[in-house]
Amino acid sequence: MSLFFSEDYEHADVQIRFEIKETLFSECSQFQKIEVFKSKFFGKMLVIDDALMLTERDEFVYHEMIAHVPLFVHPNPRRVLIIGGGDGGTVRECLKHTAVEQVDLVDIDEMVSRVCLRFFPEIAMPLTTKRVRCQFEDGVAFVKNCAEKYEVIIIDSTDPVSVGEGLFTREFYRDCSNILTDDGILVNQSESPAWQPNEVAAISQKLKSVFPKVYFYQAHTPTYLPGHWAFGFASKKHHPIDDFSAGSYQKSQLFFKYYNAEVHKSAFALPMFFRDLLALKRE
Amino acid sequence: MSLFFSEDYEHADVQIRFEIKETLFSECSQFQKIEVFKSKFFGKMLVIDDALMLTERDEFVYHEMIAHVPLFVHPNPRRVLIIGGGDGGTVRECLKHTAVEQVDLVDIDEMVSRVCLRFFPEIAMPLTTKRVRCQFEDGVAFVKNCAEKYEVIIIDSTDPVSVGEGLFTREFYRDCSNILTDDGILVNQSESPAWQPNEVAAISQKLKSVFPKVYFYQAHTPTYLPGHWAFGFASKKHHPIDDFSAGSYQKSQLFFKYYNAEVHKSAFALPMFFRDLLALKRE
Repeated sequence: MSLFFSEDYEHADVQIRFEIKETLFSECSQFQKIEVFKSKFFGKMLVIDDALMLTERDEFVYHEMIAHVPLFVHPNPRRVLIIGGGDGGTVRECLKHTAVEQVDLVDIDEMVSRVCLRFFPEIAMPLTTKRVRCQFEDGVAFVKNCAEKYEVIIIDSTDPVSVGEGLFTREFYRDCSNILTDDGILVNQSESPAWQPNEVAAISQKLKSVFPKVYFYQAHTPTYLPGHWAFGFASKKHHPIDDFSAGSYQKSQLFFKYYNAEVHKSAFALPMFFRDLLALKRE
Repeated sequence: MSLFFSEDYEHADVQIRFEIKETLFSECSQFQKIEVFKSKFFGKMLVIDDALMLTERDEFVYHEMIAHVPLFVHPNPRRVLIIGGGDGGTVRECLKHTAVEQVDLVDIDEMVSRVCLRFFPEIAMPLTTKRVRCQFEDGVAFVKNCAEKYEVIIIDSTDPVSVGEGLFTREFYRDCSNILTDDGILVNQSESPAWQPNEVAAISQKLKSVFPKVYFYQAHTPTYLPGHWAFGFASKKHHPIDDFSAGSYQKSQLFFKYYNAEVHKSAFALPMFFRDLLALKRE
Protein backbone atom coordinates (compact mmCIF):
# COMPACT_ATOMS: atom_id res chain seq x y z
CA MET A 1 0.00 0.00 0.00
CA SER A 2 1.24 3.49 -0.84
CA LEU A 3 0.51 6.48 1.35
CA PHE A 4 0.44 10.00 -0.10
CA PHE A 5 0.35 13.54 1.18
CA SER A 6 -1.25 15.77 -1.46
CA GLU A 7 -0.99 19.54 -1.57
CA ASP A 8 -3.38 21.49 -3.77
CA TYR A 9 -2.24 24.60 -5.62
CA GLU A 10 -5.72 25.61 -6.58
CA HIS A 11 -4.63 28.90 -8.18
CA ALA A 12 -2.73 26.82 -10.77
CA ASP A 13 -5.08 23.80 -11.02
CA VAL A 14 -2.21 21.64 -9.83
CA GLN A 15 -1.74 19.10 -7.09
CA ILE A 16 1.54 17.63 -5.89
CA ARG A 17 1.53 14.18 -4.28
CA PHE A 18 4.38 13.08 -2.04
CA GLU A 19 4.71 9.39 -1.36
CA ILE A 20 5.17 9.05 2.37
CA LYS A 21 6.30 6.17 4.50
CA GLU A 22 4.68 7.14 7.76
CA THR A 23 2.54 9.69 9.55
CA LEU A 24 4.47 10.68 12.65
CA PHE A 25 2.10 13.27 14.08
CA SER A 26 -1.33 14.69 13.35
CA GLU A 27 -3.19 17.01 15.71
CA CYS A 28 -5.18 20.20 15.66
CA SER A 29 -3.99 23.13 17.71
CA GLN A 30 -6.24 26.01 18.64
CA PHE A 31 -5.40 27.56 15.29
CA GLN A 32 -4.56 24.93 12.71
CA LYS A 33 -3.95 21.30 11.82
CA ILE A 34 -0.34 20.26 12.30
CA GLU A 35 1.11 17.11 10.75
CA VAL A 36 4.50 15.47 10.41
CA PHE A 37 5.13 12.92 7.68
CA LYS A 38 8.18 10.90 6.79
CA SER A 39 9.25 10.52 3.16
CA LYS A 40 12.15 8.52 1.78
CA PHE A 41 13.45 11.32 -0.44
CA PHE A 42 12.59 14.43 1.59
CA GLY A 43 13.05 13.13 5.14
CA LYS A 44 10.57 14.49 7.65
CA MET A 45 8.02 17.01 6.42
CA LEU A 46 6.02 19.57 8.41
CA VAL A 47 2.52 20.25 7.09
CA ILE A 48 0.12 22.89 8.42
CA ASP A 49 -3.48 23.02 7.24
CA ASP A 50 -2.56 20.75 4.31
CA ALA A 51 0.20 23.10 3.13
CA LEU A 52 3.80 21.90 3.15
CA MET A 53 5.88 24.10 5.45
CA LEU A 54 9.27 22.43 5.30
CA THR A 55 11.14 19.26 4.45
CA GLU A 56 14.42 18.15 5.98
CA ARG A 57 15.88 17.83 2.50
CA ASP A 58 15.52 21.41 1.31
CA GLU A 59 14.45 23.71 4.18
CA PHE A 60 17.94 25.25 4.04
CA VAL A 61 17.12 27.15 0.84
CA TYR A 62 14.27 29.20 2.26
CA HIS A 63 15.78 29.68 5.72
CA GLU A 64 19.22 30.74 4.50
CA MET A 65 17.79 33.13 1.93
CA ILE A 66 15.26 34.83 4.21
CA ALA A 67 17.84 35.37 6.97
CA HIS A 68 21.27 36.03 5.46
CA VAL A 69 20.26 38.52 2.80
CA PRO A 70 19.18 41.22 5.29
CA LEU A 71 21.81 40.23 7.88
CA PHE A 72 24.73 40.70 5.46
CA VAL A 73 23.32 44.07 4.36
CA HIS A 74 22.62 45.71 7.71
CA PRO A 75 25.96 46.80 9.17
CA ASN A 76 25.05 46.01 12.77
CA PRO A 77 21.94 43.83 13.13
CA ARG A 78 21.85 43.63 16.93
CA ARG A 79 18.13 42.94 17.39
CA VAL A 80 16.11 40.78 15.02
CA LEU A 81 12.35 40.25 15.16
CA ILE A 82 10.89 37.18 13.44
CA ILE A 83 7.13 37.05 12.92
CA GLY A 84 5.99 33.48 12.30
CA GLY A 85 8.81 30.98 11.85
CA GLY A 86 7.84 28.86 14.85
CA ASP A 87 9.73 25.91 13.36
CA GLY A 88 12.99 27.61 14.31
CA GLY A 89 14.78 27.45 10.94
CA THR A 90 15.04 31.20 10.50
CA VAL A 91 16.14 31.63 14.12
CA ARG A 92 18.88 29.04 13.55
CA GLU A 93 20.26 31.03 10.60
CA CYS A 94 20.07 34.38 12.42
CA LEU A 95 22.04 33.01 15.37
CA LYS A 96 24.95 32.22 13.06
CA HIS A 97 25.65 35.97 12.99
CA THR A 98 27.76 37.02 15.95
CA ALA A 99 26.47 40.60 15.57
CA VAL A 100 22.97 39.41 16.45
CA GLU A 101 22.55 39.85 20.22
CA GLN A 102 18.84 39.15 20.51
CA VAL A 103 16.26 37.34 18.39
CA ASP A 104 12.60 37.82 19.28
CA LEU A 105 10.33 35.21 17.74
CA VAL A 106 6.59 35.88 17.71
CA ASP A 107 4.44 33.03 16.42
CA ILE A 108 0.73 32.71 17.05
CA ASP A 109 0.83 28.96 17.62
CA GLU A 110 3.03 27.45 20.33
CA MET A 111 2.19 23.93 19.20
CA VAL A 112 4.22 24.40 15.99
CA SER A 113 7.37 24.99 18.02
CA ARG A 114 6.65 22.12 20.41
CA VAL A 115 6.09 19.72 17.51
CA CYS A 116 9.27 20.91 15.78
CA LEU A 117 11.35 20.54 18.95
CA ARG A 118 10.16 16.94 19.08
CA PHE A 119 10.45 15.96 15.41
CA PHE A 120 12.93 18.46 13.93
CA PRO A 121 15.43 19.11 16.73
CA GLU A 122 18.20 20.19 14.30
CA ILE A 123 15.90 22.94 13.08
CA ALA A 124 14.09 23.89 16.29
CA MET A 125 16.68 23.54 19.06
CA PRO A 126 18.03 27.07 18.49
CA LEU A 127 14.64 28.29 19.81
CA THR A 128 15.76 27.23 23.29
CA THR A 129 19.04 29.17 23.36
CA LYS A 130 19.79 32.20 25.47
CA ARG A 131 19.82 34.83 22.73
CA VAL A 132 16.26 33.87 21.69
CA ARG A 133 13.01 35.04 23.28
CA CYS A 134 9.90 33.21 22.04
CA GLN A 135 6.49 34.78 22.41
CA PHE A 136 3.41 32.91 21.31
CA GLU A 137 0.89 35.52 20.36
CA ASP A 138 -0.59 37.30 17.36
CA GLY A 139 2.20 38.99 15.39
CA VAL A 140 -0.10 41.76 14.19
CA ALA A 141 -0.98 42.79 17.75
CA PHE A 142 2.63 42.36 18.92
CA VAL A 143 3.99 44.72 16.31
CA LYS A 144 1.27 47.30 16.96
CA ASN A 145 2.02 47.43 20.69
CA CYS A 146 5.76 46.84 20.70
CA ALA A 147 7.90 49.46 22.44
CA GLU A 148 11.27 48.14 21.29
CA LYS A 149 13.19 48.80 18.10
CA TYR A 150 14.78 46.28 15.73
CA GLU A 151 17.42 46.55 13.05
CA VAL A 152 15.89 43.67 11.08
CA ILE A 153 12.36 42.26 10.92
CA ILE A 154 11.75 38.97 9.10
CA ILE A 155 8.18 37.99 8.21
CA ASP A 156 8.38 34.20 7.97
CA SER A 157 4.68 33.62 7.45
CA THR A 158 2.36 31.11 5.86
CA ASP A 159 0.37 32.10 2.77
CA PRO A 160 -1.90 35.18 2.89
CA VAL A 161 -4.91 33.17 4.01
CA SER A 162 -6.29 32.19 7.43
CA VAL A 163 -3.89 33.06 10.30
CA GLY A 164 -1.36 34.46 7.84
CA GLU A 165 -3.67 37.04 6.26
CA GLY A 166 -2.99 39.92 8.68
CA LEU A 167 0.73 39.74 7.90
CA PHE A 168 0.14 40.97 4.34
CA THR A 169 -1.61 44.31 4.98
CA ARG A 170 -0.38 47.87 4.56
CA GLU A 171 -1.26 48.56 8.22
CA PHE A 172 0.96 45.72 9.39
CA TYR A 173 3.86 46.92 7.25
CA ARG A 174 3.42 50.44 8.67
CA ASP A 175 3.47 49.08 12.22
CA CYS A 176 6.63 47.13 11.36
CA SER A 177 8.22 50.28 9.99
CA ASN A 178 7.44 52.05 13.28
CA ILE A 179 9.44 49.55 15.31
CA LEU A 180 12.39 49.42 12.89
CA THR A 181 15.44 51.57 13.59
CA ASP A 182 16.12 54.46 11.20
CA ASP A 183 18.29 52.18 9.07
CA GLY A 184 16.14 49.09 9.56
CA ILE A 185 15.31 46.38 7.01
CA LEU A 186 12.19 44.25 6.66
CA VAL A 187 12.23 41.02 4.65
CA ASN A 188 9.13 38.92 3.99
CA GLN A 189 8.21 35.77 2.14
CA SER A 190 6.23 36.98 -0.87
CA GLU A 191 4.77 33.98 -2.70
CA SER A 192 5.61 32.92 -6.27
CA PRO A 193 5.95 35.40 -9.13
CA ALA A 194 5.24 32.60 -11.65
CA TRP A 195 2.00 31.30 -10.19
CA GLN A 196 0.81 34.14 -7.95
CA PRO A 197 1.81 37.27 -9.86
CA ASN A 198 -1.11 39.31 -8.53
CA GLU A 199 -0.21 38.50 -4.94
CA VAL A 200 3.42 39.51 -5.50
CA ALA A 201 2.34 42.74 -7.18
CA ALA A 202 -0.01 43.54 -4.29
CA ILE A 203 2.72 42.96 -1.71
CA SER A 204 5.03 45.21 -3.70
CA GLN A 205 2.51 48.04 -3.85
CA LYS A 206 1.76 47.87 -0.15
CA LEU A 207 5.43 47.78 0.83
CA LYS A 208 6.16 50.73 -1.48
CA SER A 209 3.41 52.76 0.18
CA VAL A 210 5.30 52.43 3.48
CA PHE A 211 9.03 52.06 2.75
CA PRO A 212 11.28 54.36 0.70
CA LYS A 213 13.25 51.44 -0.79
CA VAL A 214 11.61 48.22 -1.91
CA TYR A 215 13.27 45.41 -3.85
CA PHE A 216 12.48 41.77 -4.51
CA TYR A 217 14.73 38.79 -4.63
CA GLN A 218 14.17 35.13 -5.39
CA ALA A 219 15.34 31.62 -4.64
CA HIS A 220 14.95 28.10 -6.01
CA THR A 221 12.65 26.49 -3.43
CA PRO A 222 12.03 22.91 -4.61
CA THR A 223 9.03 22.09 -2.44
CA TYR A 224 7.30 25.46 -2.55
CA LEU A 225 5.89 25.02 -6.03
CA PRO A 226 6.76 26.08 -8.65
CA GLY A 227 10.20 26.44 -7.13
CA HIS A 228 10.44 30.15 -7.89
CA TRP A 229 9.91 32.01 -4.65
CA ALA A 230 9.95 35.75 -4.00
CA PHE A 231 11.12 37.68 -0.96
CA GLY A 232 10.40 41.34 -0.36
CA PHE A 233 13.28 43.54 0.85
CA ALA A 234 11.94 46.81 2.27
CA SER A 235 14.43 49.22 3.70
CA LYS A 236 14.67 52.69 5.17
CA LYS A 237 18.23 53.30 4.09
CA HIS A 238 20.31 50.33 2.94
CA HIS A 239 20.51 49.03 -0.60
CA PRO A 240 20.53 45.24 -0.87
CA ILE A 241 23.51 45.05 -3.24
CA ASP A 242 25.41 48.33 -2.81
CA ASP A 243 25.39 47.83 0.95
CA PHE A 244 26.09 44.10 0.91
CA SER A 245 29.02 43.63 3.24
CA ALA A 246 31.51 41.43 1.43
CA GLY A 247 33.89 41.91 4.35
CA SER A 248 31.42 40.60 6.94
CA TYR A 249 30.60 37.71 4.66
CA GLN A 250 34.22 36.69 4.26
CA LYS A 251 35.08 37.19 7.92
CA SER A 252 32.07 35.15 9.02
CA GLN A 253 33.49 31.89 7.65
CA LEU A 254 29.98 30.46 7.86
CA PHE A 255 29.05 27.20 6.19
CA PHE A 256 26.11 27.57 3.82
CA LYS A 257 24.27 25.07 1.67
CA TYR A 258 22.59 27.62 -0.62
CA TYR A 259 23.68 31.17 0.17
CA ASN A 260 26.94 32.75 -0.93
CA ALA A 261 28.08 36.23 -1.97
CA GLU A 262 27.31 35.68 -5.66
CA VAL A 263 23.93 34.15 -4.90
CA HIS A 264 23.12 37.18 -2.73
CA LYS A 265 23.65 39.60 -5.58
CA SER A 266 22.21 37.47 -8.36
CA ALA A 267 19.03 36.77 -6.39
CA PHE A 268 18.03 40.38 -7.17
CA ALA A 269 18.40 39.92 -10.95
CA LEU A 270 14.76 39.42 -11.85
CA PRO A 271 13.48 37.83 -15.06
CA MET A 272 11.58 40.14 -17.37
CA PHE A 273 8.11 38.88 -16.45
CA PHE A 274 8.93 39.46 -12.77
CA ARG A 275 10.16 43.01 -13.54
CA ASP A 276 6.97 43.57 -15.52
CA LEU A 277 4.68 42.53 -12.70
CA LEU A 278 6.50 44.94 -10.39
CA ALA A 279 6.10 47.64 -13.06
CA LEU A 280 9.89 48.07 -13.24
CA LYS A 281 11.51 49.51 -16.32
CA ARG A 282 12.66 47.00 -18.92
CA GLU A 283 16.45 47.25 -19.15
CA MET B 1 -15.86 15.08 -13.67
CA SER B 2 -12.27 16.20 -13.36
CA LEU B 3 -9.60 15.05 -15.78
CA PHE B 4 -5.95 14.92 -14.75
CA PHE B 5 -2.61 14.49 -16.40
CA SER B 6 -0.14 13.07 -13.87
CA GLU B 7 3.61 13.11 -14.22
CA ASP B 8 5.71 10.88 -11.99
CA TYR B 9 9.07 12.05 -10.68
CA GLU B 10 10.05 8.64 -9.41
CA HIS B 11 13.53 9.72 -8.36
CA ALA B 12 11.88 12.02 -5.79
CA ASP B 13 8.80 9.89 -4.91
CA VAL B 14 6.66 12.75 -6.18
CA GLN B 15 3.83 13.03 -8.64
CA ILE B 16 2.37 16.24 -10.07
CA ARG B 17 -1.23 16.24 -11.25
CA PHE B 18 -2.46 18.88 -13.68
CA GLU B 19 -6.18 19.37 -13.96
CA ILE B 20 -6.97 19.40 -17.65
CA LYS B 21 -10.05 20.45 -19.54
CA GLU B 22 -9.55 18.41 -22.66
CA THR B 23 -7.34 15.91 -24.47
CA LEU B 24 -6.65 17.41 -27.88
CA PHE B 25 -4.36 14.73 -29.29
CA SER B 26 -3.02 11.33 -28.33
CA GLU B 27 -1.09 9.08 -30.68
CA CYS B 28 1.99 6.92 -30.77
CA SER B 29 4.69 7.69 -33.27
CA GLN B 30 7.34 5.18 -34.26
CA PHE B 31 9.33 6.31 -31.23
CA GLN B 32 7.06 7.58 -28.49
CA LYS B 33 3.60 8.52 -27.25
CA ILE B 34 2.68 12.11 -28.06
CA GLU B 35 -0.21 13.91 -26.34
CA VAL B 36 -1.60 17.41 -26.23
CA PHE B 37 -3.79 18.52 -23.33
CA LYS B 38 -5.53 21.75 -22.59
CA SER B 39 -5.42 23.26 -19.11
CA LYS B 40 -7.11 26.41 -17.86
CA PHE B 41 -4.01 27.80 -16.16
CA PHE B 42 -1.21 26.53 -18.43
CA GLY B 43 -2.90 26.64 -21.81
CA LYS B 44 -1.99 23.82 -24.14
CA MET B 45 0.55 21.28 -22.91
CA LEU B 46 2.76 18.91 -24.94
CA VAL B 47 3.43 15.55 -23.28
CA ILE B 48 5.79 12.87 -24.61
CA ASP B 49 5.88 9.42 -23.01
CA ASP B 50 4.04 10.79 -19.97
CA ALA B 51 6.65 13.53 -19.41
CA LEU B 52 5.61 17.17 -19.74
CA MET B 53 7.60 18.84 -22.53
CA LEU B 54 6.13 22.32 -22.60
CA THR B 55 3.16 24.47 -21.64
CA GLU B 56 2.03 27.60 -23.41
CA ARG B 57 2.20 29.48 -20.12
CA ASP B 58 5.87 29.04 -19.33
CA GLU B 59 7.76 27.52 -22.28
CA PHE B 60 9.45 30.88 -22.75
CA VAL B 61 11.70 30.34 -19.72
CA TYR B 62 13.43 27.23 -21.00
CA HIS B 63 13.55 28.28 -24.64
CA GLU B 64 14.91 31.77 -23.98
CA MET B 65 17.52 30.50 -21.57
CA ILE B 66 18.81 27.63 -23.70
CA ALA B 67 19.13 29.85 -26.80
CA HIS B 68 20.12 33.38 -25.82
CA VAL B 69 22.87 32.53 -23.36
CA PRO B 70 25.20 31.01 -26.00
CA LEU B 71 24.01 33.37 -28.74
CA PHE B 72 24.92 36.51 -26.78
CA VAL B 73 28.32 35.05 -25.92
CA HIS B 74 29.50 33.86 -29.31
CA PRO B 75 30.55 36.96 -31.30
CA ASN B 76 29.29 35.66 -34.65
CA PRO B 77 26.95 32.67 -34.36
CA ARG B 78 26.27 32.15 -38.06
CA ARG B 79 25.38 28.45 -38.00
CA VAL B 80 23.42 26.87 -35.15
CA LEU B 81 22.71 23.16 -34.76
CA ILE B 82 19.82 22.08 -32.53
CA ILE B 83 19.58 18.42 -31.53
CA GLY B 84 16.05 17.59 -30.36
CA GLY B 85 13.76 20.58 -29.95
CA GLY B 86 11.25 19.40 -32.57
CA ASP B 87 8.60 21.62 -30.98
CA GLY B 88 10.31 24.64 -32.51
CA GLY B 89 10.65 26.81 -29.40
CA THR B 90 14.44 26.90 -29.45
CA VAL B 91 14.47 27.55 -33.20
CA ARG B 92 12.10 30.48 -32.67
CA GLU B 93 14.49 32.07 -30.16
CA CYS B 94 17.57 31.47 -32.32
CA LEU B 95 15.95 33.17 -35.31
CA LYS B 96 15.59 36.37 -33.30
CA HIS B 97 19.34 36.85 -33.75
CA THR B 98 20.12 38.53 -37.05
CA ALA B 99 23.65 37.10 -36.92
CA VAL B 100 22.21 33.60 -37.24
CA GLU B 101 22.17 32.70 -40.93
CA GLN B 102 21.27 29.03 -40.69
CA VAL B 103 19.60 26.83 -38.08
CA ASP B 104 19.80 23.07 -38.56
CA LEU B 105 17.31 21.15 -36.45
CA VAL B 106 17.80 17.41 -36.05
CA ASP B 107 15.04 15.60 -34.18
CA ILE B 108 14.48 11.88 -34.31
CA ASP B 109 10.70 12.13 -34.45
CA GLU B 110 8.96 14.09 -37.21
CA MET B 111 5.57 13.59 -35.59
CA VAL B 112 6.54 15.94 -32.74
CA SER B 113 7.02 18.80 -35.19
CA ARG B 114 3.85 17.98 -37.11
CA VAL B 115 1.79 17.90 -33.91
CA CYS B 116 3.32 21.18 -32.75
CA LEU B 117 2.68 22.90 -36.09
CA ARG B 118 -0.96 21.93 -35.64
CA PHE B 119 -1.49 22.70 -31.95
CA PHE B 120 1.29 25.18 -31.08
CA PRO B 121 1.71 27.29 -34.23
CA GLU B 122 3.19 30.26 -32.28
CA ILE B 123 5.97 27.95 -31.12
CA ALA B 124 6.46 25.73 -34.18
CA MET B 125 5.87 28.00 -37.19
CA PRO B 126 9.50 29.18 -37.20
CA LEU B 127 10.40 25.61 -38.23
CA THR B 128 8.99 26.39 -41.66
CA THR B 129 11.03 29.51 -42.36
CA LYS B 130 13.81 29.84 -44.86
CA ARG B 131 16.75 30.02 -42.50
CA VAL B 132 15.77 26.66 -40.94
CA ARG B 133 16.58 23.18 -42.22
CA CYS B 134 14.77 20.34 -40.42
CA GLN B 135 16.15 16.83 -40.54
CA PHE B 136 14.29 14.02 -38.85
CA GLU B 137 16.87 11.47 -37.90
CA ASP B 138 18.92 10.26 -34.98
CA GLY B 139 20.97 13.15 -33.57
CA VAL B 140 23.75 10.82 -32.43
CA ALA B 141 24.30 9.49 -35.97
CA PHE B 142 23.90 12.94 -37.52
CA VAL B 143 26.63 14.46 -35.38
CA LYS B 144 28.97 11.53 -35.98
CA ASN B 145 28.68 11.84 -39.76
CA CYS B 146 28.27 15.58 -40.17
CA ALA B 147 30.76 17.35 -42.45
CA GLU B 148 29.72 20.91 -41.58
CA LYS B 149 30.86 23.14 -38.74
CA TYR B 150 28.72 25.13 -36.32
CA GLU B 151 29.44 28.05 -34.05
CA VAL B 152 26.76 26.93 -31.57
CA ILE B 153 25.22 23.53 -30.81
CA ILE B 154 22.16 23.33 -28.57
CA ILE B 155 21.13 19.96 -27.14
CA ASP B 156 17.42 20.42 -26.47
CA SER B 157 16.73 16.83 -25.44
CA THR B 158 14.34 14.88 -23.29
CA ASP B 159 15.60 13.20 -20.11
CA PRO B 160 18.53 10.76 -20.31
CA VAL B 161 16.27 7.75 -20.82
CA SER B 162 14.82 6.06 -23.91
CA VAL B 163 15.44 8.04 -27.12
CA GLY B 164 17.26 10.76 -25.15
CA GLU B 165 19.90 8.51 -23.62
CA GLY B 166 22.46 8.71 -26.42
CA LEU B 167 22.56 12.50 -26.12
CA PHE B 168 24.20 12.28 -22.68
CA THR B 169 27.33 10.27 -23.48
CA ARG B 170 30.97 11.29 -23.64
CA GLU B 171 31.18 9.97 -27.21
CA PHE B 172 28.32 12.21 -28.31
CA TYR B 173 29.92 15.26 -26.69
CA ARG B 174 33.20 14.44 -28.45
CA ASP B 175 31.41 14.16 -31.80
CA CYS B 176 29.74 17.51 -31.12
CA SER B 177 33.10 19.05 -30.33
CA ASN B 178 34.41 17.79 -33.69
CA ILE B 179 31.77 19.69 -35.63
CA LEU B 180 32.08 22.90 -33.60
CA THR B 181 34.27 25.70 -34.91
CA ASP B 182 37.45 26.48 -32.98
CA ASP B 183 35.56 29.02 -30.88
CA GLY B 184 32.32 27.02 -30.73
CA ILE B 185 29.91 26.66 -27.81
CA LEU B 186 27.71 23.73 -26.83
CA VAL B 187 24.76 24.19 -24.48
CA ASN B 188 22.61 21.33 -23.21
CA GLN B 189 19.67 20.80 -20.90
CA SER B 190 21.16 19.13 -17.84
CA GLU B 191 18.35 18.08 -15.49
CA SER B 192 17.75 19.39 -11.97
CA PRO B 193 20.58 19.92 -9.47
CA ALA B 194 18.07 19.67 -6.59
CA TRP B 195 16.46 16.37 -7.47
CA GLN B 196 18.96 14.77 -9.86
CA PRO B 197 22.33 15.80 -8.45
CA ASN B 198 24.06 12.62 -9.65
CA GLU B 199 22.87 13.14 -13.21
CA VAL B 200 24.09 16.75 -13.22
CA ALA B 201 27.46 15.68 -11.80
CA ALA B 202 27.79 12.97 -14.46
CA ILE B 203 27.02 15.41 -17.28
CA SER B 204 29.60 17.80 -15.87
CA GLN B 205 32.32 15.14 -15.72
CA LYS B 206 31.66 13.97 -19.26
CA LEU B 207 31.61 17.51 -20.66
CA LYS B 208 34.85 18.31 -18.82
CA SER B 209 36.54 15.29 -20.35
CA VAL B 210 35.90 16.79 -23.80
CA PHE B 211 35.80 20.59 -23.50
CA PRO B 212 38.43 22.91 -22.00
CA LYS B 213 35.80 25.21 -20.45
CA VAL B 214 32.66 23.90 -18.78
CA TYR B 215 30.19 25.96 -16.73
CA PHE B 216 26.64 25.47 -15.56
CA TYR B 217 23.80 27.90 -15.36
CA GLN B 218 20.24 27.65 -14.15
CA ALA B 219 16.71 28.93 -14.61
CA HIS B 220 13.38 28.93 -12.81
CA THR B 221 11.35 26.43 -14.87
CA PRO B 222 7.93 26.17 -13.23
CA THR B 223 6.72 22.99 -14.90
CA TYR B 224 10.00 21.10 -14.97
CA LEU B 225 9.90 20.12 -11.32
CA PRO B 226 11.32 21.22 -8.97
CA GLY B 227 11.64 24.45 -10.93
CA HIS B 228 15.42 24.53 -10.65
CA TRP B 229 16.86 23.53 -14.00
CA ALA B 230 20.48 23.27 -15.06
CA PHE B 231 22.08 23.96 -18.43
CA GLY B 232 25.60 22.97 -19.35
CA PHE B 233 27.77 25.55 -21.16
CA ALA B 234 30.77 23.85 -22.76
CA SER B 235 33.11 26.00 -24.76
CA LYS B 236 36.38 25.85 -26.66
CA LYS B 237 37.27 29.48 -26.10
CA HIS B 238 34.57 31.85 -24.88
CA HIS B 239 33.72 32.53 -21.25
CA PRO B 240 29.98 32.82 -20.56
CA ILE B 241 30.22 36.05 -18.55
CA ASP B 242 33.52 37.68 -19.58
CA ASP B 243 32.56 37.26 -23.24
CA PHE B 244 28.89 38.20 -22.84
CA SER B 245 28.28 40.85 -25.45
CA ALA B 246 26.43 43.66 -23.72
CA GLY B 247 26.65 45.65 -26.93
CA SER B 248 24.93 42.99 -29.04
CA TYR B 249 22.31 42.61 -26.35
CA GLN B 250 21.52 46.31 -26.29
CA LYS B 251 21.61 46.71 -30.02
CA SER B 252 19.30 43.72 -30.53
CA GLN B 253 16.30 45.49 -28.96
CA LEU B 254 14.72 42.06 -28.59
CA PHE B 255 11.64 41.54 -26.46
CA PHE B 256 12.16 38.87 -23.81
CA LYS B 257 9.86 37.43 -21.17
CA TYR B 258 12.58 35.90 -19.00
CA TYR B 259 16.05 36.67 -20.32
CA ASN B 260 17.91 39.93 -19.82
CA ALA B 261 21.55 40.95 -19.33
CA GLU B 262 21.42 40.68 -15.55
CA VAL B 263 19.64 37.33 -15.72
CA HIS B 264 22.35 36.08 -18.11
CA LYS B 265 25.12 36.81 -15.64
CA SER B 266 23.28 35.83 -12.47
CA ALA B 267 22.20 32.48 -13.93
CA PHE B 268 25.82 31.36 -13.47
CA ALA B 269 25.85 32.21 -9.74
CA LEU B 270 25.30 28.73 -8.34
CA PRO B 271 24.06 27.94 -4.84
CA MET B 272 26.56 26.18 -2.61
CA PHE B 273 25.03 22.71 -2.92
CA PHE B 274 25.20 23.06 -6.72
CA ARG B 275 28.87 24.15 -6.54
CA ASP B 276 29.51 21.19 -4.25
CA LEU B 277 28.04 18.65 -6.63
CA LEU B 278 30.23 20.05 -9.43
CA ALA B 279 33.22 19.80 -7.05
CA LEU B 280 33.82 23.55 -7.38
CA LYS B 281 35.74 25.41 -4.70
CA ARG B 282 33.59 27.02 -2.01
CA GLU B 283 34.03 30.77 -2.26
